[in-house]
Amino acid sequence: MTRSQLVEQIISKKSYLCVGLDTDPSLIPRHLHFRTDKIYEFNRQIIDATLDYCVGYKINTAFYEAAGSKGWEALEQTVNYIPSSHFKIADAKRGDIGNTSGQYARAFFETLSFDAITVAPYMGSDSIRPFLEYEDKWTIVLGLTSNPGAMDFEMCQVVKTKDILEEGIHIRQQNTSLLYEAVMETVSGWGTPGNVMFVVGATRPAQLEGIRRIIPDHFLLIPGVGAQGGSLEEISEKSVIGDIGILVNASRAIIYASDGEDFAEAAASVAKGYSREMKKYITKQK
Amino acid sequence: MTRSQLVEQIISKKSYLCVGLDTDPSLIPRHLHFRTDKIYEFNRQIIDATLDYCVGYKINTAFYEAAGSKGWEALEQTVNYIPSSHFKIADAKRGDIGNTSGQYARAFFETLSFDAITVAPYMGSDSIRPFLEYEDKWTIVLGLTSNPGAMDFEMCQVVKTKDILEEGIHIRQQNTSLLYEAVMETVSGWGTPGNVMFVVGATRPAQLEGIRRIIPDHFLLIPGVGAQGGSLEEISEKSVIGDIGILVNASRAIIYASDGEDFAEAAASVAKGYSREMKKYITKQK
Repeated sequence: MTRSQLVEQIISKKSYLCVGLDTDPSLIPRHLHFRTDKIYEFNRQIIDATLDYCVGYKINTAFYEAAGSKGWEALEQTVNYIPSSHFKIADAKRGDIGNTSGQYARAFFETLSFDAITVAPYMGSDSIRPFLEYEDKWTIVLGLTSNPGAMDFEMCQVVKTKDILEEGIHIRQQNTSLLYEAVMETVSGWGTPGNVMFVVGATRPAQLEGIRRIIPDHFLLIPGVGAQGGSLEEISEKSVIGDIGILVNASRAIIYASDGEDFAEAAASVAKGYSREMKKYITKQK
Repeated sequence: MTRSQLVEQIISKKSYLCVGLDTDPSLIPRHLHFRTDKIYEFNRQIIDATLDYCVGYKINTAFYEAAGSKGWEALEQTVNYIPSSHFKIADAKRGDIGNTSGQYARAFFETLSFDAITVAPYMGSDSIRPFLEYEDKWTIVLGLTSNPGAMDFEMCQVVKTKDILEEGIHIRQQNTSLLYEAVMETVSGWGTPGNVMFVVGATRPAQLEGIRRIIPDHFLLIPGVGAQGGSLEEISEKSVIGDIGILVNASRAIIYASDGEDFAEAAASVAKGYSREMKKYITKQK
């Protein structure tokens, strides 16, 4: 999916909501438990109910892997069921040496038909470039995440030394930034705002303005609204750009809104609530 | 597997070799291509042939995911086939918010019977701690990797500021280190040398002495010997400790030693060669 196709979806649906399918078999409503395909069936009903209020689905691979090869099958069925109008994100946090990252890119962009995958930046350029080679696919790089552990390394101060030549004289420049800022600055140079996004947790509104100075044009994938406590209003105020440029994800708050037979309706109602809030930021921009 | 059980295996086999099962269906010898279970069959024959020369197997999840749910099934069959005498590593480079890392830990330590998993440190403590909660299981954290991209962030200079109280006076201490050094120093405090290892690429011998000063007691998982060009002799000289404390992995150099019907024998012969070289470092220590 190209950037303009994604933006078109956002404008037409008046929503930049992404529904996170973190489907935990132990939290699936009891009336579905007897089914052998309960993970897929749960997802199918959630997708049917929320399609009109969101522009994408984010599948968290951990939950499927925990269920073994049956879980991986449910993941395949789910991604195949999502209509091509919707942006399909593999929230997989992959990243390895080039040769191996190439296999991950194949897994998620060829074997499975995802539009995007989340990737960890620690191992650097050759761990990310294989994903960027796919046309109309997106690489969503971890920037500043929503969890407490973001303080440990992402928020470390890093010093970058660069030798530049100015009027014939070698000058050593030292730039200080936080690690996640250095990641955004460096990785944005490896791709374009048409194939790279960054993850920024909704629990980090204070950093959003600074982030927008580093990457004014890139889409942000913003998880952490709902169960993790981020404010949709505050993050929208601080990060929406001309063609919107953000996707906000909520998982548990939507898919576990009810544990009864009405789970899909309850999910739709929460998703609708988020999209109603989003409408004003989209109208404002247009 | 406990540390003393692992060391016992190393001593009895006189080898600290780990065979990497990066099984790419397109590189499997032609005579196995007609089989529907060719990935598993290839692995099974490699395992049978190399058992005596190695203490562990490292399964690179990317290659199995690239083959879809059939690949995930082959991964399950393979890990089940490896005898319990051998250390089973999921080279998965996972890591996510606590809730999700908990699911990855379940996937690899409960649903699958791996002894260890490789984990990316970028997201910090709560992305790693769920793996540490499993008794007799190992978390192998990326330190300094073998690939060129290690220069981009792992080798960044980071400044850590710490406020300490000395004789009633608050003192602000600033420590400068490289990011991978900060990762090793910090993460080693979250676990013990009995449940945390670090990945250090065999292509980084110059850094090994410094690394051993930071983590003198931890096991290192050292990939990058063989296809990536690391020297077994040099890394062994610089990192072997009292109870050996390293696992050296080779993947492509072993499993693709021949593409003919003799592929398993050829793999055994390369593995035997590595283990013969290792013998002298083990004898030296004992």
